[in-house]
Amino acid sequence: MNATDLIGYFSAFLTTLAFVPQAHHSWKTRDLSGVSLPMYSLFSLGVVGWLIYGILIVSWPIIVANSITLLLACAVLCLKLKHR
Amino acid sequence: MNATDLIGYFSAFLTTLAFVPQAHHSWKTRDLSGVSLPMYSLFSLGVVGWLIYGILIVSWPIIVANSITLLLACAVLCLKLKHR
Repeated sequence: MNATDLIGYFSAFLTTLAFVPQAHHSWKTRDLSGVSLPMYSLFSLGVVGWLIYGILIVSWPIIVANSITLLLACAVLCLKLKHR
Repeated sequence: MNATDLIGYFSAFLTTLAFVPQAHHSWKTRDLSGVSLPMYSLFSLGVVGWLIYGILIVSWPIIVANSITLLLACAVLCLKLKHR
């Protein structure tokens, strides 16, 4: 793996990992007032698209990263729908 | 452009567009209590990584999508730092 690939994988890791503290914060506080419903709706839909794209081009990093992101983003979306 | 590429571009469009309503909501309400600081810190850092990756592999869709996402995510991050 070259340096460019490493940067790509590390970036995917960070943008996926980022949703862990958000999902944890939303779950713990149930404070979703500042979280935008259209954001999580559009974002979750986009991540489903990335997942389909990853499956079509058979890219495991895209499949794995977006599966985890989808679970976390959907958790925030469900909490938002419940506590708005 | 084949169907797979179209799905990729549409997904990139959605996951970038998603941050527009969040940035707008945060700017308008100044309600950032439910927004996670670690999320936007990690996410912005990850998007910087994606931008570097896009520049290294000379991919304009990655460069354009992540430049816009970075601006919007940094706007939310700055508002969070100011109004926490």
